[in-house]
Amino acid sequence: MRCIDSPDGLFHPTTIERREPGPNEVLFDVLFAGICHSDIHTARSEWGQAHYPLVPGHELAGIVTQVGENVTGFQVGDHVGVGCFVDSCRECESCLAGKEQFCTGAGRTIWTYNTLDHYGKYTDGGYSTAITVDEKYLLHIPDSLPLDAAAPLLCAGITTYSPLRKWGAGPGKQVAIVGMGGLGHVAVKIAVALGAEVSVISQTRSKEDDGRRFGAVDYIATSEPGALKRVAGKFDLVLSTVAAEEDITPLVATCKRGGVFVDVGMPAGKSQLSLKALCGIQAIVAASMIGGIPETQEMLDFCGEHGITAQVEVISGDQISAAYDNVVKSRVRYRYVIDTSTFPEV
Amino acid sequence: MRCIDSPDGLFHPTTIERREPGPNEVLFDVLFAGICHSDIHTARSEWGQAHYPLVPGHELAGIVTQVGENVTGFQVGDHVGVGCFVDSCRECESCLAGKEQFCTGAGRTIWTYNTLDHYGKYTDGGYSTAITVDEKYLLHIPDSLPLDAAAPLLCAGITTYSPLRKWGAGPGKQVAIVGMGGLGHVAVKIAVALGAEVSVISQTRSKEDDGRRFGAVDYIATSEPGALKRVAGKFDLVLSTVAAEEDITPLVATCKRGGVFVDVGMPAGKSQLSLKALCGIQAIVAASMIGGIPETQEMLDFCGEHGITAQVEVISGDQISAAYDNVVKSRVRYRYVIDTSTFPEV
Repeated sequence: MRCIDSPDGLFHPTTIERREPGPNEVLFDVLFAGICHSDIHTARSEWGQAHYPLVPGHELAGIVTQVGENVTGFQVGDHVGVGCFVDSCRECESCLAGKEQFCTGAGRTIWTYNTLDHYGKYTDGGYSTAITVDEKYLLHIPDSLPLDAAAPLLCAGITTYSPLRKWGAGPGKQVAIVGMGGLGHVAVKIAVALGAEVSVISQTRSKEDDGRRFGAVDYIATSEPGALKRVAGKFDLVLSTVAAEEDITPLVATCKRGGVFVDVGMPAGKSQLSLKALCGIQAIVAASMIGGIPETQEMLDFCGEHGITAQVEVISGDQISAAYDNVVKSRVRYRYVIDTSTFPEV
Repeated sequence: MRCIDSPDGLFHPTTIERREPGPNEVLFDVLFAGICHSDIHTARSEWGQAHYPLVPGHELAGIVTQVGENVTGFQVGDHVGVGCFVDSCRECESCLAGKEQFCTGAGRTIWTYNTLDHYGKYTDGGYSTAITVDEKYLLHIPDSLPLDAAAPLLCAGITTYSPLRKWGAGPGKQVAIVGMGGLGHVAVKIAVALGAEVSVISQTRSKEDDGRRFGAVDYIATSEPGALKRVAGKFDLVLSTVAAEEDITPLVATCKRGGVFVDVGMPAGKSQLSLKALCGIQAIVAASMIGGIPETQEMLDFCGEHGITAQVEVISGDQISAAYDNVVKSRVRYRYVIDTSTFPEV
C-alpha cells in the first residue's frame, strides 16, 4: 500500500485494513495498478481538496483469493479488475441502465478512492496489495491478457471504448484520435480493432512510428503549419484525449458535416469554441466519462478477443512519485503500471 | 432601394436595375423586408469587409408581378418570400439534399446580398422594391399570414424551426429558448406550436409578459442569483439565440443528460465551455444555420396552419439607420420590418 499525505508530498509505504468479504463480496490480490493522469490531479488536490492520507489507483488487476457465500460470478483464482468505482445506489435510473458512473441515488457513485463510502470511511484505491469489492462492481479480465498490460483498460480502455462505440467507430468511418498518451494509444488500438480508418492528431511526430504500429493510417502533427487544415472536414468522429484546455475550434473543424467531436480529456479549465464556426462545420461537440459495469465487461471481452492491451512501463512502489512527474511531462510510453509485489512486506 | 456605403455610413436612397426574369425566374414586388442582426454585422463589416454600396435584407415578402415561360410553381399575384440565399450549385450533395445553405459546389451558396453571383455582380438584398429570383429559391407565403409580420419568418422562422424540429421539440419535451429577441420570440411561438413545454431564459424580466403571452410556461431571468441552477438538468433542448460570446457552460448545464444545447446566435468571437463539466452533464453542443428551401417551405406552411408570425414594428426607409442602433441596443419589440412603399418613387 502506498499513500500520499499532501498535494506536494511523496508516496510512502503504509498499512491499511481491507474488510473481510461480506456475503456478496470478493477479496482479491491487486497485482498491478495503472497510474492515470486523474490520480495525479486528485493526489495534488487539483480537482478539489483531497482527503489525506490518500491511496489512489483506479486501474486494478489481480487474482481472486476469497469469495463471500452468495457470490456467483467469481471464483478463487479468477483474473479480475476494478475500475473507477466500487459501488453506487443500484436503484436510480442511471444504475438500472448500467451507467453507474452517473448514479443520482443516495451517496451517488462511490469512486474507488477519495470517496466517503457506505462504511463511513474514505475509499482507498489500487496502489495496494488487496481490495474487497462487491461482485457487482468487479470485472472479469480475459485469461488471454497479461494482467500488467490489462490493468489500464479498466480506465483508459473503457474511457475510449465507450464513445468510440456510441458514436459509431467502425468500418467505413474516418476516426481521429487527438493526443496519444495513456488514453490515446489505447483509443487507436480499439478504433482500429473496431474497423475504423484511424488517424492520430498529435503535437509532434515523436510518436508517429508507434501510432502507425498501433494501426493508424495517417498521422497529423499540429506543430506543422496548416496540418489541421489539411484534414478539415475529414472525420466522422474526433476523439480528444487532451487534458489541457485550448481552443477546440480547429479540431472540431476536422469533423465532417454531421460528425462528432467527443472529449474524454476532461481539461479542468474552460476550453474555447467559436459557435459561429460550429454553424458552418455542423458537427456536434460531446464529452464522455468512463463507462458502466456492463459496458466495461463488454470492452474487456472485446480486448480479449482482439489481443488489445496498453503499452506499459512496469514500475516499483518507490518509483510512483517520479512517475507522476514523468506523466505530467508526457514522458511515459504509454502507461505506468505499479507492480505491487515490490511493496514492502508488512 | 436603400443602400449603405461604408461601415459607419447611413442608409440613403439609390436606384438599381433588376434583370428581366429569365425562363425559370420570377420577378416580384418586395413589399416588406425584415431587419436581421446579421444585416447589421454585414453592413458594418463586422463579419469581414462588405462590398459597398451594399443593399442588405434577407427577409423578403411580396407579390409576384412577372413569371418566366418555364415557371410552373408561381403565378402573378402569389404571395412569396425570399430568405438568406437566392441560388446555389444545385448539384452537390448538400444541394441535392435540400440543404442549399451548405452548398459545396462551384460558386457555393449565393447569399441574397453581398455575394458575387453567376452574373458577375454582387447581389443586392431585400431593402428594395423588387427582385428577380429563380423559382427554385422562391417560397410561398400562406395567404393567411400578413406579409409584414411574415417577412421575418424567412430568416428568424427557419433559423429556429430547423433545430427545433431536428432535435425533437414536441409533446412531452422541455424546451428552453435563450434570449428573446428577433429569433427568440419566434422560437418560443414555434416551440409552443410544436407541442413542447417552453421556458424562456433571458437576462431580465422585462420580456416576461410577452414570453408568457407567446406561450412560455416558465421564465428564467439570469440576472437573478441562482436562476440557472434552479433549472439545472431540466431541459431536453436548449436553443440559444444569443449573439454575444460568453461562457455557455451554465446554459449547457440546464440540459438533461442526453439533452442538446444548440446555438443559432452565431457569436462572432470565441465562447467558453468546460469540457470537464460537459463530461458530467452529458449533453451535446451543436449549432444550426437557417435551413434549406424544402424545410423553409415546410416552416412557412406550419406557420400558416398555426397562425405564427413575428411581432413586428413596421418602419419607413428613412428609419433604417436609427433602427440598426435600436437592434444593437435590444430596443426592438421584436423585429423591424421595412415598408418599401415608403421608398421615394424613381
